[in-house]
Amino acid sequence: MFQKIEYVKRRTLLSTTLGSGIILFMGNTESPINFLHNTYHFRQDSTFLYYFGIQQSELAAVVDIDNDKVIVFGDEMSIDDIVWMGRQKTLQEKVYDSGLAEVLPLSALERYIKTAQTKGTTIHFLPPYRAENAIRVADLLGINIHSVSREASIPLIKAVVAQRSLKSEAEIVELNKAAVISADMHLLAMKIARPGMKESEIAAAIHQVALSQGGNIAYPIIFTINGQILHNHYHGNVLKDGDLVLNDSGAETELGYAGDLTRTFPAGKTFSNVQKDIYTIVLNAYHKAVGALRPCTRYLDVHKMACLELAEGLKAIGLMKGDMEEAVQRGAHALFFQCGTGHMMGLDVHDMEDLGEQYVGYSDVLLKNTEQFGLKSLRLGKELEKDYVLTVEPGIYFIPELIDRWHSESKFSEYINYDQVHEYRSFGGIRVEDDFVITADGSAMLGKHLALSIEEVEALRNYSL
Amino acid sequence: MFQKIEYVKRRTLLSTTLGSGIILFMGNTESPINFLHNTYHFRQDSTFLYYFGIQQSELAAVVDIDNDKVIVFGDEMSIDDIVWMGRQKTLQEKVYDSGLAEVLPLSALERYIKTAQTKGTTIHFLPPYRAENAIRVADLLGINIHSVSREASIPLIKAVVAQRSLKSEAEIVELNKAAVISADMHLLAMKIARPGMKESEIAAAIHQVALSQGGNIAYPIIFTINGQILHNHYHGNVLKDGDLVLNDSGAETELGYAGDLTRTFPAGKTFSNVQKDIYTIVLNAYHKAVGALRPCTRYLDVHKMACLELAEGLKAIGLMKGDMEEAVQRGAHALFFQCGTGHMMGLDVHDMEDLGEQYVGYSDVLLKNTEQFGLKSLRLGKELEKDYVLTVEPGIYFIPELIDRWHSESKFSEYINYDQVHEYRSFGGIRVEDDFVITADGSAMLGKHLALSIEEVEALRNYSL
Repeated sequence: MFQKIEYVKRRTLLSTTLGSGIILFMGNTESPINFLHNTYHFRQDSTFLYYFGIQQSELAAVVDIDNDKVIVFGDEMSIDDIVWMGRQKTLQEKVYDSGLAEVLPLSALERYIKTAQTKGTTIHFLPPYRAENAIRVADLLGINIHSVSREASIPLIKAVVAQRSLKSEAEIVELNKAAVISADMHLLAMKIARPGMKESEIAAAIHQVALSQGGNIAYPIIFTINGQILHNHYHGNVLKDGDLVLNDSGAETELGYAGDLTRTFPAGKTFSNVQKDIYTIVLNAYHKAVGALRPCTRYLDVHKMACLELAEGLKAIGLMKGDMEEAVQRGAHALFFQCGTGHMMGLDVHDMEDLGEQYVGYSDVLLKNTEQFGLKSLRLGKELEKDYVLTVEPGIYFIPELIDRWHSESKFSEYINYDQVHEYRSFGGIRVEDDFVITADGSAMLGKHLALSIEEVEALRNYSL
Repeated sequence: MFQKIEYVKRRTLLSTTLGSGIILFMGNTESPINFLHNTYHFRQDSTFLYYFGIQQSELAAVVDIDNDKVIVFGDEMSIDDIVWMGRQKTLQEKVYDSGLAEVLPLSALERYIKTAQTKGTTIHFLPPYRAENAIRVADLLGINIHSVSREASIPLIKAVVAQRSLKSEAEIVELNKAAVISADMHLLAMKIARPGMKESEIAAAIHQVALSQGGNIAYPIIFTINGQILHNHYHGNVLKDGDLVLNDSGAETELGYAGDLTRTFPAGKTFSNVQKDIYTIVLNAYHKAVGALRPCTRYLDVHKMACLELAEGLKAIGLMKGDMEEAVQRGAHALFFQCGTGHMMGLDVHDMEDLGEQYVGYSDVLLKNTEQFGLKSLRLGKELEKDYVLTVEPGIYFIPELIDRWHSESKFSEYINYDQVHEYRSFGGIRVEDDFVITADGSAMLGKHLALSIEEVEALRNYSL
């Protein structure tokens, strides 16, 4: 946990922002795998972690602004619990560490809420992303389960987003730690991967690095010779010389902060010339985007710069043609780059995604483009501020099904040389990704330098164990 | 997947047993970790796997006995899905592989069920253990979400338990594979663990063995120097010479079948004499129980034999006293052995636990003892049958909180020498566990022999990498 004062300050700021009412925080419960008592690794809700820091299931908390009270609702362990799970810090002790005094049994929550409701007090709560919490909130507030998300508090969402977006020094230390462990995960992969190995062997080794640091992986590992499949969690292929390997993986620290890095490297010792061409285009887009990071710049514009760089590079090798500014404006480059250049990062790898992308990545004056293919997957568009933490992750992906679909519709044929594109249909995909914090006059990369240039990557690939 | 015919036969038998009505099977959906699109490793529901074998989220299926129809409800991938997740086998192809022809979109399920309800057809369904499915079933059938489990079909539960309890040859091959991988997980741990290493390093290496075989772990790994904490998933301690290390871990195969093994070994190279004494008592109980496994024997009696062996051993070293048959009958041994000797195993590590322990482990003539400490944790009591698969896992655990509680109440002081017991309060815990299939005239151990005797374990601990 962070120091007490950090949690107290966060809650005080939130109370001040909202001004009145009750804020209801739901901690997460255990998630069953295949029966109730066989559960996935427990993950506390990120907003609960942010304001209370307590890693324990079946908690709830109330910040009662009108009565100036903060209460955590939860139960202490019974002797049966101790027999099965061992003596641990008491809930009272954990709550003390997060700067609070009052603890009430979980069963007292319902009466607390009902009493407030009869007085007409507004109960602010966040939209639940877990079904268990949707049921709990519906029961507590007496609303229909399918209305819960709709009735979530917009002022609370906005206040939480405003706070969690600006990372404190302590948080940046933690995010830095996550990025260092993530870099070690990638370093190991680039050192041990060899033709003939199964993707799953290397993915498992990467996973081990995260676990052995006492944390976990921040999201399911993408480790694949089919980098063009964007969310690919299949690990059943065997690496062959000539393949490109895309590794998108990151660590979560003990406190819950995420790292999110991507590298693409040759399964053999060197890139082919064609692979070098595409890799260089992606790398240029990466440097273009990184160079543009600073307060007051819209990330939407950073994204467009990256897209333009990709398009110009693709034009130079004959895959695109015509006016690239216009092509990017209209979305033609999205045949090769179907997603966004980056996203906010923090306690969630896509930070606060469950609170709504419009609130997290856009603003009242900049609405998300939910129509244009490519742009609709850009999670972050608004002006950057000092202490935002985000990713930069351009890529080029040749997706045969998408190429065929667009070609059959002659989509953007004024910008795309389909005949040349077809020669790349089995190329695969390339992405590179690092994590950055926005500083007063630019940005700083989190973690440590991880082989990025063609020379650096090939040097690691020639490393012998 | 198994061969088509296996799924067809299972469904036909189930239909014949139930005779009429509709059987509704709910597949699992994705489980969010910290936001909707960051999900845990997908695990299909075991009963859905048993009857359909299809590993895909958001499916449901209906066996309409009256109309002799089997339908899988689910959606094919859109072009957007293919961009993000790659082309996969179509649902139609997967359904074909499980011996079916008919696939309908998920949206058609509600009307199918409502139409059947208007005709007064009985809809049989199983109690959901995931909140998402509780909500789906409540919506589909128009019942209150908190009544769903209560309204589950007892005839369906009994029919599914009867079928899933008897493992087919193909299933035993798969369970054997799970046990072999699990043994490799343990072998590695016994080879690499050294004083000075953190529990998490070794747990991560064990995890890697399971992942690299293309499957997963069947349940969260217990790897601890505090073996007396029965469900201990903390991996933060450093191994010290003199410690005992308890490793309870098992693999899940690609088809979803579980292995479940436990070994306890010295963190250093050899057991101390006191450790050898307790280990030998546990081992004797293990052999006693294994020797008693055969059809028509009640597992409750196997458990009692194991408990008696433990009690006699504890008496021999002065921790218990008096008539041990009587002590076990009354539950005095449960100070040292607080749980059951074993449980059913299959697609779930505690097979079918969500269907109700009374149905799975007991019978109409043998009710579960839900009162007596120790016995109330015995998941399996009924007469064994050929083709049951189960675990044998006796242990001795010194739990300081429990010892203090019982001592302060002078509980069973006619059988327990509390003064001597206190000398063992920091001993920890020992368990050994293997998996067995019941044969026509006894039992066979699944997997492969894994170091068990003191000599075998010490030989491995002296292995140098």
